[in-house]
Amino acid sequence: MPARIKIGLIGLGRLGRVYGSYLAGRVANATLVAVAARHGDAAETFAAEFNIPRWYTSHTDLLADKSIDAVAVLTSTKSHKEVVIDAARAGKAIFCEKPIAMSVEDAQEMLAEVARAGVLFQPGFQRRFDPGYRAAKSRVEEGTIGTPVVLTSTSRDPFRPPLEFCDPSVSGGLIADMGIHDFDVARWYMGDVKSVFASGATLAYPEMKAIGDIDNAIINLTFQSGALGAVGLSRNAVFGYDIRTEIWGTKGSLQIGYLQQTPVLVMTKEGISHDAVPYFMERFEGAYTAQIQNFVDSVVKGSEPAVSGHDAVEAMRVSLAATASAREQRVVEVGAS
Amino acid sequence: MPARIKIGLIGLGRLGRVYGSYLAGRVANATLVAVAARHGDAAETFAAEFNIPRWYTSHTDLLADKSIDAVAVLTSTKSHKEVVIDAARAGKAIFCEKPIAMSVEDAQEMLAEVARAGVLFQPGFQRRFDPGYRAAKSRVEEGTIGTPVVLTSTSRDPFRPPLEFCDPSVSGGLIADMGIHDFDVARWYMGDVKSVFASGATLAYPEMKAIGDIDNAIINLTFQSGALGAVGLSRNAVFGYDIRTEIWGTKGSLQIGYLQQTPVLVMTKEGISHDAVPYFMERFEGAYTAQIQNFVDSVVKGSEPAVSGHDAVEAMRVSLAATASAREQRVVEVGAS
Amino acid sequence: MPARIKIGLIGLGRLGRVYGSYLAGRVANATLVAVAARHGDAAETFAAEFNIPRWYTSHTDLLADKSIDAVAVLTSTKSHKEVVIDAARAGKAIFCEKPIAMSVEDAQEMLAEVARAGVLFQPGFQRRFDPGYRAAKSRVEEGTIGTPVVLTSTSRDPFRPPLEFCDPSVSGGLIADMGIHDFDVARWYMGDVKSVFASGATLAYPEMKAIGDIDNAIINLTFQSGALGAVGLSRNAVFGYDIRTEIWGTKGSLQIGYLQQTPVLVMTKEGISHDAVPYFMERFEGAYTAQIQNFVDSVVKGSEPAVSGHDAVEAMRVSLAATASAREQRVVEVGAS
Amino acid sequence: MPARIKIGLIGLGRLGRVYGSYLAGRVANATLVAVAARHGDAAETFAAEFNIPRWYTSHTDLLADKSIDAVAVLTSTKSHKEVVIDAARAGKAIFCEKPIAMSVEDAQEMLAEVARAGVLFQPGFQRRFDPGYRAAKSRVEEGTIGTPVVLTSTSRDPFRPPLEFCDPSVSGGLIADMGIHDFDVARWYMGDVKSVFASGATLAYPEMKAIGDIDNAIINLTFQSGALGAVGLSRNAVFGYDIRTEIWGTKGSLQIGYLQQTPVLVMTKEGISHDAVPYFMERFEGAYTAQIQNFVDSVVKGSEPAVSGHDAVEAMRVSLAATASAREQRVVEVGAS
Repeated sequence: MPARIKIGLIGLGRLGRVYGSYLAGRVANATLVAVAARHGDAAETFAAEFNIPRWYTSHTDLLADKSIDAVAVLTSTKSHKEVVIDAARAGKAIFCEKPIAMSVEDAQEMLAEVARAGVLFQPGFQRRFDPGYRAAKSRVEEGTIGTPVVLTSTSRDPFRPPLEFCDPSVSGGLIADMGIHDFDVARWYMGDVKSVFASGATLAYPEMKAIGDIDNAIINLTFQSGALGAVGLSRNAVFGYDIRTEIWGTKGSLQIGYLQQTPVLVMTKEGISHDAVPYFMERFEGAYTAQIQNFVDSVVKGSEPAVSGHDAVEAMRVSLAATASAREQRVVEVGAS
Repeated sequence: MPARIKIGLIGLGRLGRVYGSYLAGRVANATLVAVAARHGDAAETFAAEFNIPRWYTSHTDLLADKSIDAVAVLTSTKSHKEVVIDAARAGKAIFCEKPIAMSVEDAQEMLAEVARAGVLFQPGFQRRFDPGYRAAKSRVEEGTIGTPVVLTSTSRDPFRPPLEFCDPSVSGGLIADMGIHDFDVARWYMGDVKSVFASGATLAYPEMKAIGDIDNAIINLTFQSGALGAVGLSRNAVFGYDIRTEIWGTKGSLQIGYLQQTPVLVMTKEGISHDAVPYFMERFEGAYTAQIQNFVDSVVKGSEPAVSGHDAVEAMRVSLAATASAREQRVVEVGAS
Repeated sequence: MPARIKIGLIGLGRLGRVYGSYLAGRVANATLVAVAARHGDAAETFAAEFNIPRWYTSHTDLLADKSIDAVAVLTSTKSHKEVVIDAARAGKAIFCEKPIAMSVEDAQEMLAEVARAGVLFQPGFQRRFDPGYRAAKSRVEEGTIGTPVVLTSTSRDPFRPPLEFCDPSVSGGLIADMGIHDFDVARWYMGDVKSVFASGATLAYPEMKAIGDIDNAIINLTFQSGALGAVGLSRNAVFGYDIRTEIWGTKGSLQIGYLQQTPVLVMTKEGISHDAVPYFMERFEGAYTAQIQNFVDSVVKGSEPAVSGHDAVEAMRVSLAATASAREQRVVEVGAS
Repeated sequence: MPARIKIGLIGLGRLGRVYGSYLAGRVANATLVAVAARHGDAAETFAAEFNIPRWYTSHTDLLADKSIDAVAVLTSTKSHKEVVIDAARAGKAIFCEKPIAMSVEDAQEMLAEVARAGVLFQPGFQRRFDPGYRAAKSRVEEGTIGTPVVLTSTSRDPFRPPLEFCDPSVSGGLIADMGIHDFDVARWYMGDVKSVFASGATLAYPEMKAIGDIDNAIINLTFQSGALGAVGLSRNAVFGYDIRTEIWGTKGSLQIGYLQQTPVLVMTKEGISHDAVPYFMERFEGAYTAQIQNFVDSVVKGSEPAVSGHDAVEAMRVSLAATASAREQRVVEVGAS
């Protein structure tokens, strides 16, 4: 690979545009040379705004560009399978946002094609690149807290997404859509999950019942090591975007807390108050940048990506087991890979 | 009742001595006139130290004292039944530390006797008198957070108790012994619990396996209202005594955090650090005092106690269901009272 | 001295009543046997409420009681001189609230009489008994922050006192009345003060101009050691009682922060908020108790008090120099004792 | 001006390289087309690394490039005067890092030339672009804290700069070099400063005495409005980069605190600890980016810059008065502009 790669971006939805702006400005050793989006207007406008040389309305046209070394796949989850397989066959290094597929079987098919093509594949789990999560990982590895024995992790959105995004047939439902980040982090700190028990309910937004999704869930985890875990998910943290993880060890604990947006305290008769980061882009801006930089660096150096396709499949497996447990109210084994 | 009552203390173990010192100094409208403890030395020494007029080696001798209006029962859980029934028959108002009995049946027998005697009975759940827990209760009632839909509560000891105290045949096991406070608080904020699912393991202190107790547990709660909850228990919060509860509502959340011992930050090259309260006496000193004051005030005024015998039984019911669930790894219904 | 002393309380104003309630309940090894207050009603009512055997309307009557070992002087600053001298001549151990006199000359006369009588004398500087201030003192002595080189201290009241209390001819003015605690703490951590420069203004309560007092002040300190300091005083910290001190050393810093009243966070769309202790009694309840306990223990053991008459005089000296500096807008030397 | 401007960067020291990297990647509507640095190697290497078309060893060569619309001046303070005047004569819009000159007279000469040329001039005071400082400004303007009456501001470096940077003949000394940011912020929130009193000392790094600089200072401010202020400066905040400002009003206060680097708490037997941002680049990365973006936007739109040359001169005036006060130990009037 050259010291500086040429990259193409496929998909210009909310997250696609975020990645596009980072790739256009803040990522070293990569030049964003093309974007593709079904809606030609979106592609053309975005390309113009960020001085990107080429734009397409079809991912296959972008993939046909021989000068492109790597692609970032930010399309809807449903089309990941087709795009990733096409990209692998075109010999491109692939970054693909989570979840990489709608089912474990699809994911395995994609990874098989990736393996056949011998291209680099990295799924998007940006928390692993967040300075807070990384600092905690270092502390665990240094032994600061002894042996980790319990993990608790909480992800709470400040509001529910538009109902069409919540539709479980598109999103996979609350547990798969949101929880997969917590399950990935749980595996990262604690190892593989053996079994889960989950409860979920529609408690804050009655209108979600119509589409069959829940807005709050609590998932118990039992790890292969015997360690315990609990993941809490919610769509109604109305004060901001609340992402927290705690790791409890035999010699201490680590708490990764929510972030303030500014270090300002307002002190009046009503009390002492501060703000919180409003949503995921503010909370994980640095992590998204670091993640795509890591992908670029891995492509340039030909090194193993920091997160593997196997990681993506295993986190899906926990998500699906938890979703089944919430439905059936029984312990569900995660199963071997 | 007179404007100032005479009180007797039965039991001078760790918590009994704490209550005794409060009753001797900080509680208005009550005079501690007698203590009883099996070991005469303990009773005599304590009485001398705190200028208490009379001491006994038998609770029946203390109860025979007609001038005594009320008793605080701080004996071991096993002997609560006998002492409380004797006190009720002697016509004394009764404060009894939690858990009030070893089984729901015993508790119901005690309460039946209390009802027959027409005496006031108040079980010890000191968190309900903690300024933090009370402030949160007021906020919930004022509607600050809308409808509460999820509760998470964590109790973590800084070390394991001596093994003889952990013996499940004495303590009831981790879930009953520690979790009962969280279950009571959960009922206070969220209403009755419908079913539970619990997981527990011996992860930090292998020596506890020999006595059959666990040192970490996570318990999922489903409330009658449909709301969800999770309780985390641990014996290895080595940095201090970590008691936290969060209540998540449709319009906001409340977080009752751990307490620092002092408001001091130490800022050196190693980082910025602060302390934590070491153990339950430092954390709940004010709550214990306020609780026993509330008991005295209720006796003086002849008003209903802030916590009822029914509350004590219901919290036990959740504890026992959770203990069974952890053992059998299935959802257990809490059952009707 | 006996293992348990008899104590008399002189003065039943706001702080006098606080001390009285502590002495009646929470102080070991002392029995509050008498109170004196000019207004007989106040004395009689207080004595009845707290079961205190005797009450007087004149401090000389109380001092005539030979069974009394020690007195706590909580009268107005103006009458401290007379009461303390009378108490010394009556052979009582003396605790006297700050400031011990209206002038350095008066204070020195009082201390000379105390020395002549050979009685124990302890002035009231309760911050030295606050767990936070004590923990910081230990850290400084352990060398955690290297050599302390800068101290900043802030005292802010949540509102202005009634105007009659602010009258500088009674209170000594903002700098003397509030600042003396910061100056004492400054000396405790950093050693003697060499010179001061102060600025003050009436910025929040224009009505205070009529009585000649200011409501905000900033005082620069230069210590004998060459170290620097700054003290900020205010009457308009409307959110609560804000007491903070920072000590900056060559190897780190210590920050003694304001206290929350409860460990509760309220998280709503309006932000994340918490409370603060409202006023000095809530902030320093433990410190007042520990201070008077320390006085009792010193009397019982015949040991040196933790704070000396010399400390009281030196803090006054800084107060008066700062008051003069604010008026004359020039550096004022504190002078040798 | 075109919707996208061409910009040249003059000076590639520590801060110059930081600005260069931002201009090369994160600033919209500007293309960095040339850099100039005395050391040709530095210029050539930097240009190569960031794909910048042209590089020079002389600022006059860069200014001769007619296609360049604007320049960012990041040379040493000493050469600001020459470069800025040359840039103004060449008709370039100018961003110049603080302090803009070594003396008020030089600054006024530069601004006169800027006025004559009719070019846009913006001095660098990045705190005005920090989200925390901006949020506080909004709160003040919204009246949240009533009338601001006291400001305290603290800037503390984690270590002393290399001695050659501390030399007062180059840096202007601690008060001018560091304090100018606090003085600018003070003026922004509170209006012009009337007089100052300052104390400084060499307390942590004795080796600084040889070059005639101090390492700690406290500066009292009296504002034209009558309000009070205090600024604390230090080179020995060994735990991190400690930037804090508090604004006290008649109805509340605002506290802009130090920033953690990550939201991680480490909880062990040694206590509970967190980190702090290490230095100014981490603390103000976003502010530097926003500031240069604001400059670009002002040039594109032809609007007034957010910070004016007048602001730069006034902050210098306070710095110089404070430096004189520390030397002469007397109140120094800041003087009219």
